[in-house]
Amino acid sequence: MRIGVLTSGGDCPGLNAVIRGAVLKGTAVHGQEFLGIRDGWRGLVEGDVHPLTRHDVRGLSKQGGTVLGTSRTNPFDGPHGGPENIRATMDRLGMDAVIAIGGEGTLAAAKRLTDAGLNIVGVPKTIDNDLDATDYSFGFDTAVEIATEAIDRLRTTGDSHRRCMVVEVMGRHVGWIALHSGMAAGAHAILMPEQPQSIDQIVKWVESANNRGRAPIVVVSEGFTLDTMETAHSEKGLDAFNRPRLGGIADVLAPIIEERTGIETRATVLGHIQRGGVPSAYDRVLATRLGMAAIDSAVAEQWGTMIALRGTELVHVPFQEALGGLKTVPQDRYDEAAILFG
Amino acid sequence: MRIGVLTSGGDCPGLNAVIRGAVLKGTAVHGQEFLGIRDGWRGLVEGDVHPLTRHDVRGLSKQGGTVLGTSRTNPFDGPHGGPENIRATMDRLGMDAVIAIGGEGTLAAAKRLTDAGLNIVGVPKTIDNDLDATDYSFGFDTAVEIATEAIDRLRTTGDSHRRCMVVEVMGRHVGWIALHSGMAAGAHAILMPEQPQSIDQIVKWVESANNRGRAPIVVVSEGFTLDTMETAHSEKGLDAFNRPRLGGIADVLAPIIEERTGIETRATVLGHIQRGGVPSAYDRVLATRLGMAAIDSAVAEQWGTMIALRGTELVHVPFQEALGGLKTVPQDRYDEAAILFG
Amino acid sequence: MRIGVLTSGGDCPGLNAVIRGAVLKGTAVHGQEFLGIRDGWRGLVEGDVHPLTRHDVRGLSKQGGTVLGTSRTNPFDGPHGGPENIRATMDRLGMDAVIAIGGEGTLAAAKRLTDAGLNIVGVPKTIDNDLDATDYSFGFDTAVEIATEAIDRLRTTGDSHRRCMVVEVMGRHVGWIALHSGMAAGAHAILMPEQPQSIDQIVKWVESANNRGRAPIVVVSEGFTLDTMETAHSEKGLDAFNRPRLGGIADVLAPIIEERTGIETRATVLGHIQRGGVPSAYDRVLATRLGMAAIDSAVAEQWGTMIALRGTELVHVPFQEALGGLKTVPQDRYDEAAILFG
Amino acid sequence: MRIGVLTSGGDCPGLNAVIRGAVLKGTAVHGQEFLGIRDGWRGLVEGDVHPLTRHDVRGLSKQGGTVLGTSRTNPFDGPHGGPENIRATMDRLGMDAVIAIGGEGTLAAAKRLTDAGLNIVGVPKTIDNDLDATDYSFGFDTAVEIATEAIDRLRTTGDSHRRCMVVEVMGRHVGWIALHSGMAAGAHAILMPEQPQSIDQIVKWVESANNRGRAPIVVVSEGFTLDTMETAHSEKGLDAFNRPRLGGIADVLAPIIEERTGIETRATVLGHIQRGGVPSAYDRVLATRLGMAAIDSAVAEQWGTMIALRGTELVHVPFQEALGGLKTVPQDRYDEAAILFG
Repeated sequence: MRIGVLTSGGDCPGLNAVIRGAVLKGTAVHGQEFLGIRDGWRGLVEGDVHPLTRHDVRGLSKQGGTVLGTSRTNPFDGPHGGPENIRATMDRLGMDAVIAIGGEGTLAAAKRLTDAGLNIVGVPKTIDNDLDATDYSFGFDTAVEIATEAIDRLRTTGDSHRRCMVVEVMGRHVGWIALHSGMAAGAHAILMPEQPQSIDQIVKWVESANNRGRAPIVVVSEGFTLDTMETAHSEKGLDAFNRPRLGGIADVLAPIIEERTGIETRATVLGHIQRGGVPSAYDRVLATRLGMAAIDSAVAEQWGTMIALRGTELVHVPFQEALGGLKTVPQDRYDEAAILFG
Repeated sequence: MRIGVLTSGGDCPGLNAVIRGAVLKGTAVHGQEFLGIRDGWRGLVEGDVHPLTRHDVRGLSKQGGTVLGTSRTNPFDGPHGGPENIRATMDRLGMDAVIAIGGEGTLAAAKRLTDAGLNIVGVPKTIDNDLDATDYSFGFDTAVEIATEAIDRLRTTGDSHRRCMVVEVMGRHVGWIALHSGMAAGAHAILMPEQPQSIDQIVKWVESANNRGRAPIVVVSEGFTLDTMETAHSEKGLDAFNRPRLGGIADVLAPIIEERTGIETRATVLGHIQRGGVPSAYDRVLATRLGMAAIDSAVAEQWGTMIALRGTELVHVPFQEALGGLKTVPQDRYDEAAILFG
Repeated sequence: MRIGVLTSGGDCPGLNAVIRGAVLKGTAVHGQEFLGIRDGWRGLVEGDVHPLTRHDVRGLSKQGGTVLGTSRTNPFDGPHGGPENIRATMDRLGMDAVIAIGGEGTLAAAKRLTDAGLNIVGVPKTIDNDLDATDYSFGFDTAVEIATEAIDRLRTTGDSHRRCMVVEVMGRHVGWIALHSGMAAGAHAILMPEQPQSIDQIVKWVESANNRGRAPIVVVSEGFTLDTMETAHSEKGLDAFNRPRLGGIADVLAPIIEERTGIETRATVLGHIQRGGVPSAYDRVLATRLGMAAIDSAVAEQWGTMIALRGTELVHVPFQEALGGLKTVPQDRYDEAAILFG
Repeated sequence: MRIGVLTSGGDCPGLNAVIRGAVLKGTAVHGQEFLGIRDGWRGLVEGDVHPLTRHDVRGLSKQGGTVLGTSRTNPFDGPHGGPENIRATMDRLGMDAVIAIGGEGTLAAAKRLTDAGLNIVGVPKTIDNDLDATDYSFGFDTAVEIATEAIDRLRTTGDSHRRCMVVEVMGRHVGWIALHSGMAAGAHAILMPEQPQSIDQIVKWVESANNRGRAPIVVVSEGFTLDTMETAHSEKGLDAFNRPRLGGIADVLAPIIEERTGIETRATVLGHIQRGGVPSAYDRVLATRLGMAAIDSAVAEQWGTMIALRGTELVHVPFQEALGGLKTVPQDRYDEAAILFG
């Protein structure tokens, strides 16, 4: 069996460990051959591949990013896209199956291609941890760790100057990174897309921390929005939330907090440092196991399924189940964290 | 309600986060008071306690060790030990309940005291991750991360000198730290108590890696033993396994590997650096949640239970269930890792 | 002798180590007493002090920020400011001398006060490393280390997506942090205040790296400005450099590079994470030694001097020498780094 | 000009950065060609080389170990060794000069070869920082950082259990790593080869820390020896110092301290983790600059010299000067640190 491997969408710590896990298991246990597909679906559509041997994946478990490259190409677009063309390309390359490592968009495309008869198994990738079918996805732990270390650092500056520090972490649609890094680092307010808040509430949290002699730490997901009712009556300053802007939402929030509380306030947007570099041990183990389990799926010809983590076990779930819905932070987890705000 | 908190047994990253989580939730939600019990059961037996306020637990989530101190005192020993004396001490201090944070020995003692009518809830602590009732215990993730980083470092030395590096990690009875750090860092052999191996097999793994041009990495749990059949016929050198010695098992293993393979071999015993210092974000979140959940147990008067992690949820399980058995590395997890040895 | 200690200006990793070094040496060797002065000159002007014992400085060498607090108060301002009032306050407190830890502004104020007869010795603090009298100042090494780790992380994202990554580091007036972190992390362009460049030159470096198959890394000091000739003829987009804005200069530069090169480009502004948190070992050693040397200055009554590092030795230099000029990155150091741009 | 590059002796963080610096400068500025010499002098003697291009050194500044391999081969040994044979080999390979990166042994051999007419320039490498001619050598900063982080971790365990922690760091002949890591981490005793101490003195330091309520931290260089007078009258336990043994000197010292003080004492031998892995930013900058400066030496035909750091400048010094003597920790630096012991 000759298997192609592709990584698609935003990069994520652990992608290389998935690739390595798949190649090591496939070659050692099943005598499979592997082709590295360059830049996600683009490489599959264009037949841009190269052999991927045991030797090529040496030392990859600790390497951030993806050695295969990635892109956001849609495999249904262009003159060579779509299931018929891709099938022809795979036949030409002698590629029996594809392991597609990617997020919801990638898995949705993989589902359509599988429905059209192509042999694809999936490995879920979302640094935001927003895929409902799996307890955790690789990359998330590393992102939380990096964010937590950064907040630890910012705290000493806040304490020394008695400043409020606003830290923006990743999370366009869900607040998992904010929740975990905020809990880990002892934030006094955690703001996330699932829980719109008013400026009044934010100010209340900041002042409460300040009144207890603490330098307030506010952790905010990039996708946080103000409570809509308030936005309707918003003052001029709040318009900044909805305008295109340089910088992040923390850059908008910080001056508003400073103006409302009189407490000197500084913004930090962590940005891409959360998704690059050496993966945590947790992510390396999870990603390696996912890559190995994808081989089991391919050998069992479970096309149209992806691997998910449930507790400490890996299970195979149909793409459609995985695509069900966004895994948001549930109310009880938010309430639990909010107890710590003080 | 006035609650005493104690930490018992070996220290573990996250102990302070449990204490903080309990105190913050208990004071904020239930208006409880807290007493810090010094040095584990010793402080309870001797009534050596101090008030533990919200202020006292500031910034503790990131602090390694335990601010309460710890010991291995048995609460049934001595003139003031045993359930009757402890009950009298608790009455004198106005202490309504105890949160006991500790490993299997601590929980076994807690069970006996609860059976005798004392109000105790438990939080499991085992850096080795060897408690069957919970998916993971806090401290384990930090230990794996530290061990993985250390092995990453040793690899570059091995590669430069074409040496075999033997790394000893914690794990007296189980191989979880070896399994995870070995997988994460790409070890060529992982040796653990659950899987006795012969020197012949170890030599085979080392030579196989060497023949592929790799500097062999051997990760070994402190509790690993040689396959007993072989030990029976052991050469002189192998006696070193069973004698009292300075250093660790890696110090014994390295010269044997060197002698048998002719490959220069070096030992490193990671030791206590795996259990100290700043906890990982994963452990801080888990530990904080455990501390908060212990308050729920106390409020619900679920004496004689401890908190366990199942998937992403915390559940309350009776002590007896938790004390069932050692959680060893199952065969399929070991086999999965062994595929990567090459 | 009773000595007051104050920290003034922006916080910096190592401030607490200086305080600890001074208190430990002063108490152990000379039997001195210490007073902690709160929030820089403010505390001296207002007589807001507290005893600072050996016990108070325990474990401080590794703690970021300053336990004394800091501010940007000018000691000549307000009804209680100025040398006469401060002398009276010092007399009232029995404070014989002051160790002032701060940057150029702090040292300039200290000089004026010393000229008016007050007993002050200085310890230079500048995270930007811009003080001419000393080879290195504490905090700089930590900042470079944090920036370097961040750039390492960003590189893997750049490589995976074939993006250009623009990273903004501290340095309002000098480019030392950019120079060192850029060299350490292998940047393809380093932009700093001392070396204004045109957009054309920046584009050339970016395209050169891209043409060699590298994901271009641009490290830019916050104080970098475009070559003025070009700015005079600037296109609309370049105006953004000179307008008040949210975010940093990297946020301005990235879209211009993307537009000019066609290479997807992302900005990261590291900001305050560079100045907080645990100091590097280098900074702890340097800061501890500076604190101890300040005691020697006080005992020798070398008022009006500060401690400087020359090679591996600490020397005492008059404030006026220290205030001479900004230590900019010399041309030969920039040229040396530029060889690596490719 | 075609230049060979070799790394010799124990590996050290920064070796790869030296190689990269030399190759980038040599190719970009002087159009030189490079040959990588495998495994130190062995590769030169045997003519075991490979081309080393700009492409080959990509990303090397952050990579630990040496991509060229290393060995302890003496270039004067064997049938192909000695200046005449090596000259012939160099001629055959068209190799005009050699950059030799190594410690005192390497530089001594390089001196003899240069005296015999070969074109060699040196770059000093000693992780122990024991070379007199240079302020600091690359690798030392990384080793100190790793040791310091490890001691920070051990401290929390010591505090929780009220144990004495004995930590062994590198340093066969000099105590620089012990001095710096011990100062940085707040050790209560620092033991080094330059300062033999009696058990009585060590016990005194340990008890003094313990009496102040601290968990004693003892940092010991691997090359530390007991004060000889005392050893002459040593009790049985002290014999362990002089016998061949598994483990390190910390393993010997810990039980003696425990027996003498009654304080539970644990040993940790950091070993090889101090010399592997990602170099600190400081070491990357220093090593990169050294590599570039070695090219200047070669272009100027300054054979028989090595590059040294003086303050912030790099200078060229004759081998003989560099080989003068061991750079030990001077008495005043030890006394300075000892003030902190308490």
